[in-house]
Amino acid sequence: MSSEIVVIGSLAYDTISTPSGKKDRTLGGSANYFSVASSLFTKVNAVGVVGEDYGDNDINVLKNRGVDVSGVQIVPGKTFHWEGKYEGDLNEAVTLATELNVFADFKPQLSKEYSKSEFVFLANIDPEIQLEVLEQVDKPKFIACDTMNFWIETKKSDVLKVLSKVDAILINETEAMMLTKAPNAVSAAKEISKLGPKIIVIKRGEYGFMLFQEGNFFILPAFPLETIVDPTGAGDTFAGGFMGYLSKMNHPFKEEDVRSACMYGTVLASFTVEDFSLGRIKNLPLDQVETRLKEYKKVVTVPKA
Amino acid sequence: MSSEIVVIGSLAYDTISTPSGKKDRTLGGSANYFSVASSLFTKVNAVGVVGEDYGDNDINVLKNRGVDVSGVQIVPGKTFHWEGKYEGDLNEAVTLATELNVFADFKPQLSKEYSKSEFVFLANIDPEIQLEVLEQVDKPKFIACDTMNFWIETKKSDVLKVLSKVDAILINETEAMMLTKAPNAVSAAKEISKLGPKIIVIKRGEYGFMLFQEGNFFILPAFPLETIVDPTGAGDTFAGGFMGYLSKMNHPFKEEDVRSACMYGTVLASFTVEDFSLGRIKNLPLDQVETRLKEYKKVVTVPKA
Repeated sequence: MSSEIVVIGSLAYDTISTPSGKKDRTLGGSANYFSVASSLFTKVNAVGVVGEDYGDNDINVLKNRGVDVSGVQIVPGKTFHWEGKYEGDLNEAVTLATELNVFADFKPQLSKEYSKSEFVFLANIDPEIQLEVLEQVDKPKFIACDTMNFWIETKKSDVLKVLSKVDAILINETEAMMLTKAPNAVSAAKEISKLGPKIIVIKRGEYGFMLFQEGNFFILPAFPLETIVDPTGAGDTFAGGFMGYLSKMNHPFKEEDVRSACMYGTVLASFTVEDFSLGRIKNLPLDQVETRLKEYKKVVTVPKA
Repeated sequence: MSSEIVVIGSLAYDTISTPSGKKDRTLGGSANYFSVASSLFTKVNAVGVVGEDYGDNDINVLKNRGVDVSGVQIVPGKTFHWEGKYEGDLNEAVTLATELNVFADFKPQLSKEYSKSEFVFLANIDPEIQLEVLEQVDKPKFIACDTMNFWIETKKSDVLKVLSKVDAILINETEAMMLTKAPNAVSAAKEISKLGPKIIVIKRGEYGFMLFQEGNFFILPAFPLETIVDPTGAGDTFAGGFMGYLSKMNHPFKEEDVRSACMYGTVLASFTVEDFSLGRIKNLPLDQVETRLKEYKKVVTVPKA
C-alpha cells in the first residue's frame, strides 16, 4: 500500500481543429493527460484499452514518465477516436465524431497491485465502468471523478451513484450546471456537495476554477496566456496535477492543501494548452511547473493591507 | 483642489428583464451607479442631463450620498431610457431599445469648481462628449474612462483619441476584444496598453476582472453569489469603487493600491447585482462593504506554503 494513483480513462487518437490549426489522429485521451501530469508527483497506474493501431511511441509517452501501463489492455480493433473543434469560444469543444472502437466492450480489470492504490481517479468515461472500478479497489484513501454532458443526459442515475461514492469531483462549469439545473457555478457547487463529494472543483477554462469544500469557496482564474493553441486535455491535466499533489500530502487533507492542489492543476493545465496533444507536457520537468506556479501566485496575490 | 471626483455619464430610466423578473422604467444610468459607489470614499461631482420627468426621489438618491448634483442639467423633454434583457448568460445584456431623449443634444458644462476635481471618470457615453469634458478639466491627477461596442463600431477614432488621453480604462471583456481584435482578454489588455492607458481593467462579469499595469497582471474572480438578480450597473459600480478608493491614496499610485481598488470595485459590484436598480447600494454603508471584502479575501487567498 502506498501513495500510488490508479487512473481509469481513455487512451485515444484525437482529430482537432482550433484557430491555431488542425491535427489528425494526434495522441490524446483523459488517461494520457492525467497520467503525464500526475506522474510528476507519484507513481501512477494506468487502466485503459487501446487497439492494435496504437503506436509504441504513444505508449512510451507514459512509460517515459514511469507510469505503469500493465493495466492498459491491447485488443484487436482500433483505438478510441474523438474528433472535435473549437471556434470562437476556446472554453467549449464541439464534438464532431466519437468512435468508441475498442472502448465499446471495455471491461476494466485491476491487478492486485493496482487495487491497493490509495488514490483513484475515474476520468470521464461511462459511469457504469467507473462503478466497476470502484468495486475492484481496496479501501482507497481518496477517490475523485470527472464526468460529462453525454453521461449526465443518458445515464444520470449511474452518475449519481458514482457521486455518492467519491470524495471529490472535478467537472466543467456547464456540466455542473446541467447536472444540478443550477443557474450558475456557485449554486451548482453547493448542490453537488449534497450528492456526496466533499470536494467540488468546477473547471472554467480560461476563467480558472472554483473549489468548494466544507462550505468555503476558493476561486481563481487560469494562468494568463496570450495564445491558447489547443484546450484539449486541460481538464484532465488539471486533475492529474490536483491528484498528484494531494498524493504527497497527509490525509485527511487540510483545506489549504486542496487549495494548493488546485493551483498545481491550473498551472499544469496552462502548459497543456500551449501546444496540440501532449506536446508541451510530455517531457515537462517539475521545476518548470514550480517556476510558473511562482508567476501564477504573483498574478493572484492580494495586497496585504 | 482636492481629491474630489467628477463623473460624466447617464442618469437614466431602465426597463429590464432578467430571470428574476422585469422592472419598468426603474432608476439606472452609469453616473448614478458610479456616484453612489464612489461617494462612499470621497466627494463626487456629477455631470449629466435629465428630462422633466426625472423624479425628485431619484435625484435624492445622489443627494443623500452627498453627491454634488449641480452639474446635472434638467431640460425640457424625457430622460434617457434604455431597455434590455438578460437571458441564460447574465454576463451580457441584449439591448432592446435605446431612447437618447434629452441626451441627444447634451453638451456638458463643468463649473469652475468641478473643473478642479483631481479625479475624472468618463463613463460609457459618446466619446466626443468624453473629449469635451477633458477640454474643460484643469490638470487632473487621474483620468479613467469606459466605453462600449456601439462607440467602438461607430466612432472608433474618437474612442482612440480618448484612450490616448486617459490614465486608465475599465472595459468589458468582449468589448476589449472587439476594440483590439485580440482573441482573448490577456492579449487585448496588452494591446490596449499600447493605445495610451497605463492601467487597464477588463471586466468579466461573474468571472471578475483582469488588471494589467506595468507589464503585470492581477486577475481575480467576482465575489461568489448564489443568486444574481440584475447585473445592470455592475461595471459602473465597479468603476465607482475603484476610483473612490484610489482618490484616498497617494498619487502616483502603488501597484498594490490599484489592486486593492479593483477588489473594492468587485465587492461593491457584488451588492449592485443583488437587486434591481440601485436598490441594494443606494443606502449601503461602508462597513458592510468592508465585511464582504474580508469574506472575498478568504475566497481568493492563496496558501502560504
